[in-house]
Amino acid sequence: MSELKNDRFLRALLKEPVDKTPVWIMRQAGRYLPEYKATRAEAGSFMDLCKNAELACEVTMQPLRRYDLDAAILFSDILTIPDAMGLGLYFAEGEGPRFENPVDTAAKIKALGVPDPEDDLGYVMNAVRTIRKELDGSVPLIGFSGSPWTLATYMVEGSSSKDFAKVKGMLYSDPASLHLLLDKLADSVILYLNAQVKAGAQALMIFDTWGGSLTPQTYRDFSLHYMAKIVDGLQREADGRKVPVVLFTKGGAQWLEPMADTGCDALGLDWTIDIAEAQRRVGDRVALQGNMDPCVLYSNPESIRQQVKAVIDGFEGNTGHVFNLGHGIHQHINPDNVKVLVDAVHEFSSNT
Amino acid sequence: MSELKNDRFLRALLKEPVDKTPVWIMRQAGRYLPEYKATRAEAGSFMDLCKNAELACEVTMQPLRRYDLDAAILFSDILTIPDAMGLGLYFAEGEGPRFENPVDTAAKIKALGVPDPEDDLGYVMNAVRTIRKELDGSVPLIGFSGSPWTLATYMVEGSSSKDFAKVKGMLYSDPASLHLLLDKLADSVILYLNAQVKAGAQALMIFDTWGGSLTPQTYRDFSLHYMAKIVDGLQREADGRKVPVVLFTKGGAQWLEPMADTGCDALGLDWTIDIAEAQRRVGDRVALQGNMDPCVLYSNPESIRQQVKAVIDGFEGNTGHVFNLGHGIHQHINPDNVKVLVDAVHEFSSNT
Repeated sequence: MSELKNDRFLRALLKEPVDKTPVWIMRQAGRYLPEYKATRAEAGSFMDLCKNAELACEVTMQPLRRYDLDAAILFSDILTIPDAMGLGLYFAEGEGPRFENPVDTAAKIKALGVPDPEDDLGYVMNAVRTIRKELDGSVPLIGFSGSPWTLATYMVEGSSSKDFAKVKGMLYSDPASLHLLLDKLADSVILYLNAQVKAGAQALMIFDTWGGSLTPQTYRDFSLHYMAKIVDGLQREADGRKVPVVLFTKGGAQWLEPMADTGCDALGLDWTIDIAEAQRRVGDRVALQGNMDPCVLYSNPESIRQQVKAVIDGFEGNTGHVFNLGHGIHQHINPDNVKVLVDAVHEFSSNT
Repeated sequence: MSELKNDRFLRALLKEPVDKTPVWIMRQAGRYLPEYKATRAEAGSFMDLCKNAELACEVTMQPLRRYDLDAAILFSDILTIPDAMGLGLYFAEGEGPRFENPVDTAAKIKALGVPDPEDDLGYVMNAVRTIRKELDGSVPLIGFSGSPWTLATYMVEGSSSKDFAKVKGMLYSDPASLHLLLDKLADSVILYLNAQVKAGAQALMIFDTWGGSLTPQTYRDFSLHYMAKIVDGLQREADGRKVPVVLFTKGGAQWLEPMADTGCDALGLDWTIDIAEAQRRVGDRVALQGNMDPCVLYSNPESIRQQVKAVIDGFEGNTGHVFNLGHGIHQHINPDNVKVLVDAVHEFSSNT
């Protein structure tokens, strides 16, 4: 493997000195880029794109060609594990993910197995290896997974949900079955992320997109508990370097302290908290990743620069911050505005 | 006007002694009740129902016949003000509210007038008078409005929105125009709520459904600032009794302290915060209303009673708490479960 030429991202996550604040953007390989749409059209369905290592590599590289980004992220979907469990993932046009076989009974949960990542999710590992080779040490590669709770919401509901009626119905009326599902998912995520590290991922992120829909108590018991189990089970070193782990619960700004207690290296922040307050609350325990409102990118260069500066200035100290949006970039953003953002991060954070 | 036979709700909001914790349920007159669906079918469209004082009164009374509720709430919609401003509110089946004429430019905002509540929203005042008469002092009647920010999101987007692209684009690129819109809305809400009080409303609630989509700074500047202006402008007494005002920002649990500073009487809480922690943070300044996860009602009587008890036990003291869900009741809830909830609140909170 080539030496890393730009390790700012890994250093910031581990609170080692950096020359500038590193930046990447959630969903940076995505529909706001015309070249992404072209490759996606060539691939066929969204899952065809995920399963084609060459094309998944191509879309992963696209934003790096346009912008001075400090990390690449594996192009994949959070629902690969349930798909590998046999739920039959598909994407209804304009409606988000769906499962042919939702897991909405105790019996179906008992019948689920834990996927073998190299056998059942080999296409993801192929993509990791291909991308890592193509990056050739330019920037680190982030591997990722959905959190057990977030995966369970889709698996029980069978699709995206506004109110989580089925999965929360199960939570309140049959918690034992839901715990069994979450435990199998945590075991699956551990194997899956460790396989990604073995294949070449240099940092890991766990997306808990729907943790914010829970109460404080049920968040601790049904989401955070299983993320903590994952953090404990992860391979934390590769190529003689630490592999940092980032936890991100959207809508979880109230729960940063217990999240930091899991032993992860960094927390992702959405835009509903000032980064200064987040830093005050977690202290030196973890680095922070975030947290500009993605909607700032609908405005103009002047406003974007101003909002970038506000986040950069809000974080105290010269390391421990990775700039990002507070959620994935929206599909109707003008790509030129992303360049303004990325350049502004480096300009306003220069320590040299 | 008849004397109030049950004033537990008003007393709890003002932190006067009560025999039991009062309870009402957001959207208690709604689609989970078969009798509501029958009346709705008789009325025609949703807005036809809102505009028919007799039928609006009928659906307001329906949940009071089934359950031992401590308050009634005016049956209406939060978007009556923009409709009266000429935006042309309609409801596309299964898609939520829409406006024929969204207000998405500075020029359109400048052209907007402030509706006269008795002239332009007379149907709402008729409904308030009719319901108040029908209640005959059994329980107090709550009047309400959307918050300026929440109204503005629909007015600028033209419909519900997942990402608030247009209104936040305006916020970040043309804040002056958005402030002008919000200021006109605050003036309109003050007139509208004061007219509701004059017509018979005995408590007021402001629903800031989308305040939680903002950053801390933009929440203060674009949502809370205008709710504070409204609180300052409201008629706070009627029939020789104080008219309590409740502010509710969904997703606003992080911002309870500045909300309490507005001078309102109570805060609505969603389910993402423990009521004990909320109480610790706001101290004696305001009463609290909430905050059981609405999804608990998908479970069974035993679990519902347990979760009701957890909220009741979480609140310290014998007054200052109004039990409610953390958001409106969902349409697929079994009505029998609501009875379990309401009875459990009174059972577990009895001070006698």
